[in-house]
Amino acid sequence: MTVTSDSGQLASAPLALTMGDPAGIGPDITLTAWVERNRRSLAPFVFFGDPDALGARARALGYEVTIKTVSSLAEGLAAFATHLPVIAVPCAAVVAAGKPDPANAAAIIASIEQAVAAVQRGEARAVVTNPIAKSVLMAEGFPYPGHTEFLGALSEKLFGAADVHPVMLLASSELKVVPLTVHIPLADVPKAITSRSIVATAQCLHRSLQTDFGIANPRIAVTGLNPHAGEDGKIGHEDERIIAIAIAALRDGGMAVTGPHPADTLFHAAARETYDAVLAMYHDQALIPIKTLAFDTGVNVTIGLPFVRTSPDHGTAFSIAGTGQARASSLVEALRLADTMAARRMTNRSEHAG
Amino acid sequence: MTVTSDSGQLASAPLALTMGDPAGIGPDITLTAWVERNRRSLAPFVFFGDPDALGARARALGYEVTIKTVSSLAEGLAAFATHLPVIAVPCAAVVAAGKPDPANAAAIIASIEQAVAAVQRGEARAVVTNPIAKSVLMAEGFPYPGHTEFLGALSEKLFGAADVHPVMLLASSELKVVPLTVHIPLADVPKAITSRSIVATAQCLHRSLQTDFGIANPRIAVTGLNPHAGEDGKIGHEDERIIAIAIAALRDGGMAVTGPHPADTLFHAAARETYDAVLAMYHDQALIPIKTLAFDTGVNVTIGLPFVRTSPDHGTAFSIAGTGQARASSLVEALRLADTMAARRMTNRSEHAG
Repeated sequence: MTVTSDSGQLASAPLALTMGDPAGIGPDITLTAWVERNRRSLAPFVFFGDPDALGARARALGYEVTIKTVSSLAEGLAAFATHLPVIAVPCAAVVAAGKPDPANAAAIIASIEQAVAAVQRGEARAVVTNPIAKSVLMAEGFPYPGHTEFLGALSEKLFGAADVHPVMLLASSELKVVPLTVHIPLADVPKAITSRSIVATAQCLHRSLQTDFGIANPRIAVTGLNPHAGEDGKIGHEDERIIAIAIAALRDGGMAVTGPHPADTLFHAAARETYDAVLAMYHDQALIPIKTLAFDTGVNVTIGLPFVRTSPDHGTAFSIAGTGQARASSLVEALRLADTMAARRMTNRSEHAG
Repeated sequence: MTVTSDSGQLASAPLALTMGDPAGIGPDITLTAWVERNRRSLAPFVFFGDPDALGARARALGYEVTIKTVSSLAEGLAAFATHLPVIAVPCAAVVAAGKPDPANAAAIIASIEQAVAAVQRGEARAVVTNPIAKSVLMAEGFPYPGHTEFLGALSEKLFGAADVHPVMLLASSELKVVPLTVHIPLADVPKAITSRSIVATAQCLHRSLQTDFGIANPRIAVTGLNPHAGEDGKIGHEDERIIAIAIAALRDGGMAVTGPHPADTLFHAAARETYDAVLAMYHDQALIPIKTLAFDTGVNVTIGLPFVRTSPDHGTAFSIAGTGQARASSLVEALRLADTMAARRMTNRSEHAG
C-alpha cells in the first residue's frame, strides 16, 4: 500500500461521498444526512456530483440547504458547517427523480473515480458511496458487476496496488458478516466454495477486524453450507471436505476460527457473544440475519482495499426518489463507520511509524 | 379425517407429551414445565414414558416432583394439579443422562405411537413430542428420517387418513415460516423445488393458518431461491420459471400469495407486518430468521396431519441432560400452542356441526 499523505493532513480531511445514480435516493439521503449533521455528530463530507441535480432535489423535498460548489476538498471542509459542499461532476442529461438515464452513466462513474483519487492524494479520508444501478451502467459498457469490483480495479490503477481482492462485509452494531460468495445463483454456490477461497477471505476479514475495528485477536465463526453443517456428512459433504479443512488450516496459522457452525443457531443474541464476525457461505445466509437484526442501520463495507470504503446497504430505490420517504439511517451509519475506520487506520500507521 | 370423539370429551382432555430420547433433555424440560405449570398457565398434560427414568432425573436435578403412574388420560387429568401424571412406557435399559442407548429405541417409538393413539381415541387433545435422536432409532431399524414422517405414517395407520403430506412449520410470536425442502444437501435444493410442491405446501399452510391459527384470509409470502429473487433472471432462473409460476397458480385459485420475494429483506419488523406466514425454499432460509428472532421460544409444528402436533424446536442436547442447564421455554411454548390449536380446531368443528 502506498501512503502518500502525512497523517496530520489526512486526519483533518473530509470524507468523499459519491453521487451514486442521481435518479435514485442518493441525493435525498445525502441532503438528509447534511441537515442532520449536528444532531448525529457527523464528520464533514464533500459530495462528488452534479450540484444542479442536488439543488433540484432539495427543492423537491422542501429542504432549505445551501449547496456550495467548491474547487478543493479543503475548501469543502471549511464550508461544511454552513453549506453542503460539492465537487462538481456534471451530469450530461437533466436528472429526473425515479427515471434513471444511461446518458448520466459517465458522470456516475467519474464521481467514483474522482472520490477515490482524492483519497489517494490524501485530500479525503475515506470513500462513502451512494447506491448505483448496475443495469444503467452496464448499458453504457461498464464492465464491472458492481462497486466492489470497480473499486478493486481503481485500487490497482490509482494506488498501484497489486493483487487486490476486495471483500464485502456487512456491519451493524449487532453483527459483522461476510458472504463468501455473493451474486451467483444458489445452484452455483456449492461448487464455488473452495478451501482456498475460505482461507483467503478469512485472512482478509481477520486483518480488517484488527486494522479497521481495533480487535487485537479477532474471533471468526464460519458457517456450514448444509443444514446442521452437514451432520457429520449425513447431509452433504462440503462441510467436512472443504470448510472444515480450511478452518483447520487457519487455526494452524494461529487464527481464532471456529466452525463449520450450523447457520441457523449462529445469529441469536447469546451466539453473537461468542465471535467478532461471521464468514458465511452465500448471499442469503449472510444477509438474512443482518437485515433481520439491523434493517435500517446495516452498512456495506469493502475490506481488502488500500483505502476505507463504506456504503449504505440498500439500492437506488428509484420508486421513492424525490418523495421524502427515503431513510438516511444507513448512509448516516456508513459515514460514521468510514470516519471511525479511517481514524483507526491512521492510529495504526502512527503507532507503526513511532 | 375421522372424528371419533365428541367435542365435549376432547375439550376437557389433557395434552399427550411423549418421552423423546430419555437420555436427552426431554425429562428435564418436562419436569420444569410441570413445576412451572401454574405460573405459566399451562393446560394439563400427561407424560408417555418411563416413570423411573423421570423420577431419577427429578432427583438428579433436585426437583421435588411427585410422579404418579396413571392408567388413563382421565386419571392423569385429575392428578395434574398435584402430580406429574405418567402413562408408563417402560424403557428396556436403565437410562443414563447424556448416554443414549439403542436398547431404549422401542420404548421411544412406543411412546409416540401410544400418544397418537390416545388422540385418535379422543382421550388426549393433541400430541406434544420431546426431542428424539434419529441416529439412535435408525440403528434399531426405524425407517423414518424423523418425527414428521413417522407421524404421517401413524396418521394413515391409526386415523385411516389417506395421502397424508405432513409439513413442518416453525412458529413464534414474531414469525411463522415453512421450509419447502428440509434436511437435504444445499446442492440438491434447486432441483428439489417444483411448482407442484410449492402449490401443495402453500395450500397446506393456507388451510392450517385458517384452521389452527384462526386467520380467515391468510397472506402468504413466498421467498425466491436466488439472491435478490434472481433479479429478473440475471441471477438464476428458478425464481421466474418455477416459483413465480406456482404463485400465479395459487393467486388464480384465490389465495393471497405474494412473491418471489428477496429473502434477505423479508424478515425485519416492518416486512413481517405484510404477511401471516412465509414459505421459504430451504432449511437455513427458514430457520435462520426464526432462530435469530426467537431462539428460545420457537415451536416446531407439523401441519397437514389429522391431529395437532407440536414440539420444541431444539434437539436432544445430550451434553446438558441432567445438568440443570436445559431451558424449558420452547417446550412451554409448544404445550401452549398445541392447546390453542386444538381449541381452535374444536371450535371450527362445532361451528361446522352447528
